[in-house]
Amino acid sequence: MNGRTDGGDGLVRINGVALWRQIADRIRQSIGNHEYDETGMIPPETELAERFGVNRHTVRAAVAALSREGVLRSERGRGTFVVRQELYSFPISRRTRFSEGLGEQARVFDGDLLETCEEPASAKLAERLGLEAGARVIRVETVRRADGVALSRSSSWFPSERFAGISEAFLATRSVTAAFRKLGLHDYVRKHTDVTASHAMPDDCKALGLSPGAIVLIARSLNTDLDGVPVQYAVTRFAADRVRISIDSEA
Amino acid sequence: MNGRTDGGDGLVRINGVALWRQIADRIRQSIGNHEYDETGMIPPETELAERFGVNRHTVRAAVAALSREGVLRSERGRGTFVVRQELYSFPISRRTRFSEGLGEQARVFDGDLLETCEEPASAKLAERLGLEAGARVIRVETVRRADGVALSRSSSWFPSERFAGISEAFLATRSVTAAFRKLGLHDYVRKHTDVTASHAMPDDCKALGLSPGAIVLIARSLNTDLDGVPVQYAVTRFAADRVRISIDSEA
Repeated sequence: MNGRTDGGDGLVRINGVALWRQIADRIRQSIGNHEYDETGMIPPETELAERFGVNRHTVRAAVAALSREGVLRSERGRGTFVVRQELYSFPISRRTRFSEGLGEQARVFDGDLLETCEEPASAKLAERLGLEAGARVIRVETVRRADGVALSRSSSWFPSERFAGISEAFLATRSVTAAFRKLGLHDYVRKHTDVTASHAMPDDCKALGLSPGAIVLIARSLNTDLDGVPVQYAVTRFAADRVRISIDSEA
Repeated sequence: MNGRTDGGDGLVRINGVALWRQIADRIRQSIGNHEYDETGMIPPETELAERFGVNRHTVRAAVAALSREGVLRSERGRGTFVVRQELYSFPISRRTRFSEGLGEQARVFDGDLLETCEEPASAKLAERLGLEAGARVIRVETVRRADGVALSRSSSWFPSERFAGISEAFLATRSVTAAFRKLGLHDYVRKHTDVTASHAMPDDCKALGLSPGAIVLIARSLNTDLDGVPVQYAVTRFAADRVRISIDSEA
């Protein structure tokens, strides 16, 4: 990635985390750092064992875990390949649209509506959406995929009064943009996004097919109509080993 | 955070991660979700043990770990307080400057120069900086603090030919902006930023005082002069339990 590896290869043993999991994290990191780009393969077990100062069984357990996650694929007699080295790049801008943003990175984008309900807005959410505390909002839970790979799960909240029927419209179109259009909102913009990171929660693991211990990038965003009136607040949790967030600050 | 908690409170046991560490992660997550904002305290041990379906010793080990990290502070006879509930907000825009960006969130900003050297650019880095492969670059490793709290560590690369003396200028001013100015570059802009997340590496733990198992948000950014010529490529690793990245997409 940048002509330099982090620290030495000596492993600082982490209290409370099994050694094989730490090795798996180091291998994942090396993949992200493009260390194996040239061959597309990770080094042999014996070499990794020596590099990390652990025995072969520990390396084998780490490789097995990464294979279960779909990060590596072992081919008998050939070696262990890195399955996908490139992250999907999700651009954040004033004009962010989910599928359009991912553009040519996949052939097929689709998603599922996991759950929808109407509920009273919490004080914080009401403030964000410019509503009175306790106002009704429609919550829509979705998961998004690119070529069958789950990239993110989102919780979105829409003001009920203005967007009655949005969950049905989303279900019919599988797109927030198209659902808004059906309800008479023809354009909207992303006003603000906060990005944090956290360990995957059980719901993330289930929806995104992540193994426990994985990391999610969390984007909290506010969309408004062209008059600046909030139309959607969304919390999107991206699988961090599949997606990077990309920000162009061009004038 | 948004009138809803993730999943149930039942714990999915994670293979290879000690139970107390999983409980610590859940408590950290609840803090991030503003669940304890009202009292500023976490619930009593017995209540947490019941909520997570584990015994009190496990909860105690989790709380002890979070106390060592500085996330919680126990006061005899009163309870266990959340030390800092708010993340520092680091804005990314065309005009991003480290200290200015954090603005009024701290009284004192400072940083250390950990290491500096001159080296040949890797093929990837040379491409990013618009240099020929193998061109000399100056690498500057820094750590940044707000009111004494380490927020991030950065590796920055500058073209040697144009910016000879930048590490001395940084050392004298403790600011990239001021160092550029000393070398005759009076203005620059951030062109692009990629954000990913990863487990903290041993160097992160050391520089940022993180406990093993912590998460870092990683921003890779390219700065250019006003003519669009690259002047700096930087990889900044933020402690994810201290910093959020904030993006305004105002027109």
